[in-house]
Amino acid sequence: MDSYVIQVNGHGDHAPVLDVHLSTNGNSLSLGKVKGRKPRWAVRASEMSKKTFNPVRAIVDSMKVEPNPKKAMISLSLGKTLLFFNFPKGDPTVFGNLPTNDEVTQAMKEVLDSGRYNGYAPSVGKLICSSCEEAVAAYYNCPEAPLQAQDVILTSGCSQAIELALAVLANPGQNILVPRPGFSLYKTLALSMGIEVKLYNLLPEKSWEIDLKHLESLVDEKTACLIVNNPSNPCGSVFSKSHLHKILAVASRQCVPILADEIYGDMVFADCKYEPIATLSTNVPILSCGGLAKRWLVPGWRMGWILIHDRRDIFGNEIRDGLLRLSQRILGPCTIVQGALEHILDRTPPEFYHNTLSILKSNADLCYAALSAIPGLQPVQPAGAMYLMVGIEMEHFPEFENDVEFTERLISEQSVFCLPATCFEYPNFFRVVITVPEEMILEACSRIQEFCEMHYQGAEGAQDMECDK
Amino acid sequence: MDSYVIQVNGHGDHAPVLDVHLSTNGNSLSLGKVKGRKPRWAVRASEMSKKTFNPVRAIVDSMKVEPNPKKAMISLSLGKTLLFFNFPKGDPTVFGNLPTNDEVTQAMKEVLDSGRYNGYAPSVGKLICSSCEEAVAAYYNCPEAPLQAQDVILTSGCSQAIELALAVLANPGQNILVPRPGFSLYKTLALSMGIEVKLYNLLPEKSWEIDLKHLESLVDEKTACLIVNNPSNPCGSVFSKSHLHKILAVASRQCVPILADEIYGDMVFADCKYEPIATLSTNVPILSCGGLAKRWLVPGWRMGWILIHDRRDIFGNEIRDGLLRLSQRILGPCTIVQGALEHILDRTPPEFYHNTLSILKSNADLCYAALSAIPGLQPVQPAGAMYLMVGIEMEHFPEFENDVEFTERLISEQSVFCLPATCFEYPNFFRVVITVPEEMILEACSRIQEFCEMHYQGAEGAQDMECDK
Ligand SMILES: Cc1ncc(COP(=O)(O)O)c(C=O)c1O
Ligand SMILES: Cc1ncc(COP(=O)(O)O)c(C=O)c1O
Repeated sequence: MDSYVIQVNGHGDHAPVLDVHLSTNGNSLSLGKVKGRKPRWAVRASEMSKKTFNPVRAIVDSMKVEPNPKKAMISLSLGKTLLFFNFPKGDPTVFGNLPTNDEVTQAMKEVLDSGRYNGYAPSVGKLICSSCEEAVAAYYNCPEAPLQAQDVILTSGCSQAIELALAVLANPGQNILVPRPGFSLYKTLALSMGIEVKLYNLLPEKSWEIDLKHLESLVDEKTACLIVNNPSNPCGSVFSKSHLHKILAVASRQCVPILADEIYGDMVFADCKYEPIATLSTNVPILSCGGLAKRWLVPGWRMGWILIHDRRDIFGNEIRDGLLRLSQRILGPCTIVQGALEHILDRTPPEFYHNTLSILKSNADLCYAALSAIPGLQPVQPAGAMYLMVGIEMEHFPEFENDVEFTERLISEQSVFCLPATCFEYPNFFRVVITVPEEMILEACSRIQEFCEMHYQGAEGAQDMECDK
Repeated sequence: MDSYVIQVNGHGDHAPVLDVHLSTNGNSLSLGKVKGRKPRWAVRASEMSKKTFNPVRAIVDSMKVEPNPKKAMISLSLGKTLLFFNFPKGDPTVFGNLPTNDEVTQAMKEVLDSGRYNGYAPSVGKLICSSCEEAVAAYYNCPEAPLQAQDVILTSGCSQAIELALAVLANPGQNILVPRPGFSLYKTLALSMGIEVKLYNLLPEKSWEIDLKHLESLVDEKTACLIVNNPSNPCGSVFSKSHLHKILAVASRQCVPILADEIYGDMVFADCKYEPIATLSTNVPILSCGGLAKRWLVPGWRMGWILIHDRRDIFGNEIRDGLLRLSQRILGPCTIVQGALEHILDRTPPEFYHNTLSILKSNADLCYAALSAIPGLQPVQPAGAMYLMVGIEMEHFPEFENDVEFTERLISEQSVFCLPATCFEYPNFFRVVITVPEEMILEACSRIQEFCEMHYQGAEGAQDMECDK
């Protein structure tokens, strides 16, 4: 035992090379300082945790949401129950009408049986056991946007992919360009990291294309990236090739890299085509975020990825290394899902995807047709993803202040819950999730119709109200 | 279509209530500004990503690690191969000698078959489907440290539990107290968040107990928390009840909350008892971080948790809410593992744990005995976890500058890889992982012996070298 003491003192090198902090404090072992201080408990949550703010909860928590006891609740919002207030992501698994494919489940069971995927995934996987990254690269690789294993970073869901992409691209004090309406996680993550958010407009009258002039006007020296979400939550819109080219032209002119949120990639209805934005770009560096959640209908499995597209070497090693370092912090997604990834990507039968999309398309059509016929509502036809946005002609519903009040009353009178689009920074719309079973959509639409007919005021009525004031 | 335009312009309320940024830029659509600026590509990785630094890679990457081609490589370090340089966590699954239990795998397969756990886990799970949090609470609940579902936050591995605990407790500019030697992730996470690290000493001559005076001397007004890692990586030490009481006394006197890293909880050898620190505290608020990785031998599954112990309501709702908000950012661990959790905790047979520990204990004993007999080495007997630290009497190995050079040469001559403890901020030691199969440990120890005998210099020899200089 003594030998330790000797060694410790003899070498005197227990203050290691790496320690930069001890030197100032290590010598003052006097308790005077400690006594002088009168400690008391004062544990406060960090600024960062306070800045981590979910607008949906803030809005929805403040709503009075007692459904009409005479009508069964139908949620066209997020999940099974009213209490399920999270980020405004659609969960296609809630009703059991959209199960994942058997191949997907089977892949996981085989991996479990093999016992070979219980250990840590190598974080420098690129060098050794790159089969998961390779599988993703091979799946998305194409001549226009070539990908290799080292261009893939696996993450815990697309949410973490977005988090890492923002964390590597932006410093506190910089800003990012975010669509409005748009998925609220972008702003939540950015603000919690001290990154400023500038909202660019989408245009409902142009199927939610980007207002490119507005977008370009927002760029300044501090702009760290442009988030492009295609297909879109909450709009259900899908950008055409030519519109994507125009977006790329702005990014290229302004030298702003793109964070492409393509979690709904390939989820477009038959009459329209999905183009990964990286396939159209020759110079703009792009981090494309995706995952298994939506297309494979397993959002809970938390498998996501970043695809690094950087053909002009603008990101260079710096961004790649930064992403690798950041992704090591929590050591990647569950290895069982990682192990199953290649099988899932390669062996899920095409009919599965087609089937999902034809259900979504048919629901979208039903819902759009039903809501279009309702006075005072202006649904915008979706082309993909799992959502549909509905404009409320507020002037015809003078009883309600805004979309929050409108949807609140829709619950208390009709037990139908739709998310007010104020959650997406877009007042006077509401969002409908179209993964719900057909009969529920029809019932919900007919209740929405009853509700609107009850509260709709024609032009004169609305004017009367104005005069009454 | 026109109705949108009318609505948009008529109401003029597309700049939503929540938008605080647009107002300054929204009006200046002039392209003058844009033209004036000459944009060029300059994408730099963020400061935060640069501050995310893994000391192990930095150290090990700089080592010359060409094994001796005549001897098969044996790694007593991290994983299968030399290239597997991650945080210095032990992966017990690498050699296949420590498989997880069948009940654990079975639980996952049942969950997959049920198809009920593919969706998002409710993030306010406490209100609805709290079975996973409840299962963890029930498992760790005891009269001395009662726990309920709302005291449990599920995370993606213990790593994320530590990340969230630090993120909620500390602001940039504050400091945390971290053991030396200690797991390097603490410092990596802290520095990347701008939190300062103060290292307190562990004492090898006292079975790695904390130098309590040194610990207390480091506390100042900016100290946000004290990290206590018990059982310890890299020491394999287990604190006694009385030592834990003394640690709590310091925390209580100084009013510093504790982040207890108890990922190796219950992994102690038969002759010794593990005490969760929260069971001994009546006032100090504690966030205990744990998970499935080690005890259930499935580190890749990324299931971890924070247990909130706060009987005096010092954390209060603030810290709880902060943790919930932070954990929503990436939406929790894989739901298949969540679904299996109750089954895993309740039905894994006790023999499984005993069996793991008796293998570890027997390996520890073998290794300790073999290394104790080697001139110039001073192993410290472990009492739990999966590691053993070995002191190098550097004065007897004058050929080598330090532990890094020592372990480097051990690879090139003997093809045995041990992690230099400089990776744990503790030079002149190396760490051995004792999850390797017995015959490999024996072979490795005999090669280490050959190596040491070759390079050992007695007292005179060492002095000769001194004189030569
Ligand atoms: C646009 C968008 N991006 C990202 C996500 C998050 O995906 P994941 O569940 O893989 O984190 C969602 C979820 O609904 C989404 O709608
Ligand atoms: C002390 C300590 N804490 C935390 C961890 C990380 O655990 P997890 O794999 O659950 O993230 C490890 C892994 O080795 C560890 O040794």
